[in-house]
Amino acid sequence: MTVLTPTPFQAQPEIPPYVPQGNECQLFETALVRQLPLLLKGPTGCGKTRFVSHMAARLGLSLTTVSCHDDLAAADLTGRYLLKGGDTVWVDGPLTRAVRSGGVCYLDEIVEARKDVAVVLHPLTDDRRILPLERTGEILDAPPGFMLVVSYNPGYQNILKALKPSTKQRFVAIEFDFLPKEQEIAVVSTESGLEAARVAPLVDLAHRLRAMKGHDLEEGVSTRLLVYCACLVDSGMPAREAVLAALIEPLTDEPDVRAALREIAHAVIA
Amino acid sequence: MTVLTPTPFQAQPEIPPYVPQGNECQLFETALVRQLPLLLKGPTGCGKTRFVSHMAARLGLSLTTVSCHDDLAAADLTGRYLLKGGDTVWVDGPLTRAVRSGGVCYLDEIVEARKDVAVVLHPLTDDRRILPLERTGEILDAPPGFMLVVSYNPGYQNILKALKPSTKQRFVAIEFDFLPKEQEIAVVSTESGLEAARVAPLVDLAHRLRAMKGHDLEEGVSTRLLVYCACLVDSGMPAREAVLAALIEPLTDEPDVRAALREIAHAVIA
Amino acid sequence: MTVLTPTPFQAQPEIPPYVPQGNECQLFETALVRQLPLLLKGPTGCGKTRFVSHMAARLGLSLTTVSCHDDLAAADLTGRYLLKGGDTVWVDGPLTRAVRSGGVCYLDEIVEARKDVAVVLHPLTDDRRILPLERTGEILDAPPGFMLVVSYNPGYQNILKALKPSTKQRFVAIEFDFLPKEQEIAVVSTESGLEAARVAPLVDLAHRLRAMKGHDLEEGVSTRLLVYCACLVDSGMPAREAVLAALIEPLTDEPDVRAALREIAHAVIA
Amino acid sequence: MTVLTPTPFQAQPEIPPYVPQGNECQLFETALVRQLPLLLKGPTGCGKTRFVSHMAARLGLSLTTVSCHDDLAAADLTGRYLLKGGDTVWVDGPLTRAVRSGGVCYLDEIVEARKDVAVVLHPLTDDRRILPLERTGEILDAPPGFMLVVSYNPGYQNILKALKPSTKQRFVAIEFDFLPKEQEIAVVSTESGLEAARVAPLVDLAHRLRAMKGHDLEEGVSTRLLVYCACLVDSGMPAREAVLAALIEPLTDEPDVRAALREIAHAVIA
Amino acid sequence: MTVLTPTPFQAQPEIPPYVPQGNECQLFETALVRQLPLLLKGPTGCGKTRFVSHMAARLGLSLTTVSCHDDLAAADLTGRYLLKGGDTVWVDGPLTRAVRSGGVCYLDEIVEARKDVAVVLHPLTDDRRILPLERTGEILDAPPGFMLVVSYNPGYQNILKALKPSTKQRFVAIEFDFLPKEQEIAVVSTESGLEAARVAPLVDLAHRLRAMKGHDLEEGVSTRLLVYCACLVDSGMPAREAVLAALIEPLTDEPDVRAALREIAHAVIA
Amino acid sequence: MTVLTPTPFQAQPEIPPYVPQGNECQLFETALVRQLPLLLKGPTGCGKTRFVSHMAARLGLSLTTVSCHDDLAAADLTGRYLLKGGDTVWVDGPLTRAVRSGGVCYLDEIVEARKDVAVVLHPLTDDRRILPLERTGEILDAPPGFMLVVSYNPGYQNILKALKPSTKQRFVAIEFDFLPKEQEIAVVSTESGLEAARVAPLVDLAHRLRAMKGHDLEEGVSTRLLVYCACLVDSGMPAREAVLAALIEPLTDEPDVRAALREIAHAVIA
Repeated sequence: MTVLTPTPFQAQPEIPPYVPQGNECQLFETALVRQLPLLLKGPTGCGKTRFVSHMAARLGLSLTTVSCHDDLAAADLTGRYLLKGGDTVWVDGPLTRAVRSGGVCYLDEIVEARKDVAVVLHPLTDDRRILPLERTGEILDAPPGFMLVVSYNPGYQNILKALKPSTKQRFVAIEFDFLPKEQEIAVVSTESGLEAARVAPLVDLAHRLRAMKGHDLEEGVSTRLLVYCACLVDSGMPAREAVLAALIEPLTDEPDVRAALREIAHAVIA
Repeated sequence: MTVLTPTPFQAQPEIPPYVPQGNECQLFETALVRQLPLLLKGPTGCGKTRFVSHMAARLGLSLTTVSCHDDLAAADLTGRYLLKGGDTVWVDGPLTRAVRSGGVCYLDEIVEARKDVAVVLHPLTDDRRILPLERTGEILDAPPGFMLVVSYNPGYQNILKALKPSTKQRFVAIEFDFLPKEQEIAVVSTESGLEAARVAPLVDLAHRLRAMKGHDLEEGVSTRLLVYCACLVDSGMPAREAVLAALIEPLTDEPDVRAALREIAHAVIA
Repeated sequence: MTVLTPTPFQAQPEIPPYVPQGNECQLFETALVRQLPLLLKGPTGCGKTRFVSHMAARLGLSLTTVSCHDDLAAADLTGRYLLKGGDTVWVDGPLTRAVRSGGVCYLDEIVEARKDVAVVLHPLTDDRRILPLERTGEILDAPPGFMLVVSYNPGYQNILKALKPSTKQRFVAIEFDFLPKEQEIAVVSTESGLEAARVAPLVDLAHRLRAMKGHDLEEGVSTRLLVYCACLVDSGMPAREAVLAALIEPLTDEPDVRAALREIAHAVIA
Repeated sequence: MTVLTPTPFQAQPEIPPYVPQGNECQLFETALVRQLPLLLKGPTGCGKTRFVSHMAARLGLSLTTVSCHDDLAAADLTGRYLLKGGDTVWVDGPLTRAVRSGGVCYLDEIVEARKDVAVVLHPLTDDRRILPLERTGEILDAPPGFMLVVSYNPGYQNILKALKPSTKQRFVAIEFDFLPKEQEIAVVSTESGLEAARVAPLVDLAHRLRAMKGHDLEEGVSTRLLVYCACLVDSGMPAREAVLAALIEPLTDEPDVRAALREIAHAVIA
Repeated sequence: MTVLTPTPFQAQPEIPPYVPQGNECQLFETALVRQLPLLLKGPTGCGKTRFVSHMAARLGLSLTTVSCHDDLAAADLTGRYLLKGGDTVWVDGPLTRAVRSGGVCYLDEIVEARKDVAVVLHPLTDDRRILPLERTGEILDAPPGFMLVVSYNPGYQNILKALKPSTKQRFVAIEFDFLPKEQEIAVVSTESGLEAARVAPLVDLAHRLRAMKGHDLEEGVSTRLLVYCACLVDSGMPAREAVLAALIEPLTDEPDVRAALREIAHAVIA
Repeated sequence: MTVLTPTPFQAQPEIPPYVPQGNECQLFETALVRQLPLLLKGPTGCGKTRFVSHMAARLGLSLTTVSCHDDLAAADLTGRYLLKGGDTVWVDGPLTRAVRSGGVCYLDEIVEARKDVAVVLHPLTDDRRILPLERTGEILDAPPGFMLVVSYNPGYQNILKALKPSTKQRFVAIEFDFLPKEQEIAVVSTESGLEAARVAPLVDLAHRLRAMKGHDLEEGVSTRLLVYCACLVDSGMPAREAVLAALIEPLTDEPDVRAALREIAHAVIA
């Protein structure tokens, strides 16, 4: 029986590194100063969550992240009554805690949440900047240091799940995309420990696969998968096997598409 | 690490400023005097909520606002039994509190609420002016100073969610639209702090974008987004970047439409 | 800041005034004497609720009204167990209270309620005249002075929501319609305080608009909206503005239909 | 104000009168003796419920009736745990009470109930004749004097609601229809107090209307409505008005159909 | 008033009689010895439940039967927390009790149950033979004497309700059909007490009616209905009346089909 | 009455035997070392669960397996508040227990679970490796020895149930298929006790049946069913009967398909 000693993933720095693509850092700061809520749009794994972590740490703000999903309801954000010793006691949800104490509250993939969530955000995202807790009768004023950030992936077309215009019109918005090639090589190399020269063909391949999005692939390769792939190579796995496990199998279940992707990969990766 | 000192948004005045578009202030006052419920119709961000805040403050009435959503049920408005020390205790909802104490109760986007909400409003919106609380057996008489105001956006066509004629026929109604150009420039300048001359081209652009509604855009630019945009410019962001972040990205996720909007913007904004 | 002194709506008389259209008063009395349940059919705002209030007061019977809606279930009518001091205590619903104490129980818009409601009514509407409370094991005998009245609007065609024949066949039924012109002028004048001569053209207009039902309008103008309109005129609002706010805006959101209605109104109202 | 003294409906006799149509009484007795469950099929108001009441009284058996509906679940029949003094206490439902004590348990309109109800009946309707209470772990043996009777109206065609063959194949079944003319006149006269000669044309009319079933009418006139109609006439209402209120308005909401039915009625009724 | 003395159904023997159709008894024993779960397929009333009762009694195993239905969830099989004296106490469900104590657990009409039920069975039906109780954190090992048997009727085609291949592939399976004629006559005669010569034409008729399955009848006559029919005849009811009540009315509600079945019956039965 | 002594299934060894198909063992180890989550894809019964058991035992890691289903929600994995002595007490779910204590957490058939489950996994499957418990306010850091493994069967095409790309892009993935013939014969022989020569024709037959997948069969024969079949033969059942019970009946309910499969079987099996 082999016992492996797992080695920890790269230690989390004080301020997570982030390479800006445009004016997004300035826009984040201005939105904080002018107390405007912020909407981040962009594909899976392009760095939206990392950007928020980076800005919150850089500006000295606490960060509360909520991953939204089909069953996330307003009460999951604002709070609930729980039974304690026979009484019902109010327990704040993550949004309420953030509004009380200030800092960034980040709702990831907001379109996935139930519809009442968007409405809870309305009084927080106009000039009132309040969070009414109907169940307790409280009305909380968001402090100047509170900032609401939400995100979604416009690549998923889903008429049932689109954000209503009346909600989108309450946010200043930024469109994200994948990093330019040189920057992405640097990021993947840093995060995986694999030297840049060996990362470069993997990034090359990722750019080719991203070009297939909308045709055979629902979504392009994320930077995260590139890091996974580079980790496998760095651990001694042959590059083609790492590409299959980290860049191809996670993208498709179709035998024909998989075969096509392997051919492309073999043309690029030795 | 930079620490920013957020500056507070414009302080809330005693009576929120409001520029009337027509006879809506007189109609609101008459509805209050004659005890008629009021229905406000109009697009997102055209000032319906502001109008209600203005009139409530001007007439010295308290204001209770409830943002309606898919899961808002009658009990969320009227009240519920909660467990306290082993007993079930009745806790008034916001509508019940407003009926007991008088003042304006404003149900924003009423069509979003569940169907039983409309029915709770029926006995409040005919000559009985009562709120029966079936769970407690109480029947509350609305005092003369109680006024019910509801709103919705007729621009969202949704047969599943339309207000029933039997409900609409219980309200006096006002149709709202965006402000005329000169008035909108004044409002945006006041709220953002940006001088009127620099606001004017932004409002010009907004009017062009609103004309595209129904073609490429689901909804036109709201006055609120114009204020956001002017805030960004006032904080030193180049106008075209501010327009992209505040007027274009929140309106569309379609690359083609975004490109078209940017072209229009570049023709208007230096 | 202006403070208005709201003037109360017309005080509720002992017996609410009612102008019979046909034999409905005799039919109500006979149904009470012979212990037959009664079904009222007719459009929104034509006076069904007023008729029941009138007859109950005239015959010295208490009146319990329940507005039915999508989520109204049998238990909302019959009762529920609630927690009190750690025990579950049975609390009668409005139908059960009415069966215990006698009087008229009026279920408004019965077709809106959940299906189990109709079935709860079955043993009350045949010769057994009983209300079985399955949860408590009680079987209540309705006293001779108990009378069940239900109503719905056959104008809403909805196959999902139609009353089953097996339920309709348990009621004696009356079809209501709007009042003849002279009677409607009298009612509107009395309720609004506006002199009959100024009410007459409003009633004229209402009859024209009702003729459009099924073409551009889902439903005709109710007598209630006519009273609203006359109230606005009586308070000094120009007639055309009152017509727009009380007779046109509540009926349609379609710009084309609204324009057509305004033209008709301007032809009739100075 | 008029105060009417309601006169009670005909007093319930020891054994409700019933006029057999065929061998149904013998079949009921044999089913009881051989311990076979019984299924009654037939249109609304043709006497199925009356037949069960008659047979139960005649055979000296207690009778438990449950009207089934969309939300009736197995637990409504078998029982539930309720909170009493902090503990959960099991409370028998009506079916369990009937199985424990014997007698007839009659489930009216069984097809309306939720699907789990049919399955609860399976072990009661084969040679095991047991009622397993999964929640308590008890298995009740039905005593010889227990008999299960269910009914439905095959006239409602509804593929979502049909009884599964695996359930129907567990019952001996009887098809009911309306009474022959002479018998129906006798029943209506007895129940309404109106002399047979005046009842006869009403029954004539009912037979004509029943012939229209499937064409303009979803269902024919029930014997119950005929009794209502005769009651109104007996109380002094003109026959044509009574026919309108009791035989026509409950059957249709369509103006054209109503007009046709009135013409037929006027040809038969003076 | 007649008081009938019901005579009890045939007393349940120690081992319920069962006439094998093929190798099913050997297969059941082998499945028990090799600890393989068993799936029984076949039409309503062909003897699946009887077979399981027979084998369990013959092999000296306890038998737990659960009739599955639309609302049967995993927790109904595994157990739930209930409130007792203010605490939540875990109460085993029938499957958990069977796994703890051994014996046969028979889930009848498994396809009717909710989807989570099938998944609860997965770890019990591979080589792990465990029942994980996620709510309590327990993992129960099924003892060697535990055997899982499930059944369904493949005649009901319902794509929403089919067992997933990943579930079916966990069972050894047997297909059942109705008994051959001679065996069925013997069974019906034994169970009803009617002599074989008088049973024979009834079985003849049943075979003719079964041949109509899929054309006018959704399902053929079960052996159970044949026993019912023979019971009625044995109690003195004319054979044609018994056939109508026990073999025809339970099979169809269509007048045309009923008439056709009666003609077939009259050709066979005097 | 025969009493059989069931013989226990093959005793579970310390490390369950597993025959690798490719680089999957190395990939599992590397994923553990580099802290990457793992996704296993492949048909029912091809050995995914066995592979995870094998690797966990071989690497000395505890293993928590959760079979996902339609009703499995995030709270079933993370934990819930339960009532204990009047208080609500938090009870960890299986995922939370695994994150607290380390080891492999294996979510089988992840696509079956409710959508909120995937989102709970997001912060565990990026570089944060955290499990936020929103209900308690805790944020758990996964220890280095924690590894998340999920699986699904891509052969079930179901657009409602596909894993979102944003979830799949968080895993390194392996595609599994059935074993090559020689390896499968060895596995079946070992697990059933039947000699390899008698297993060989069964495996031959299985390969022929798998080739029919997508045409007449929804899924091919699993290795598990082959083991069942060999067990039956090993217990003395004729091979053709064993093939019918273990390889044909579990795969199809269609008489035509069954007949075709039997013909194929008879050609291969004596």
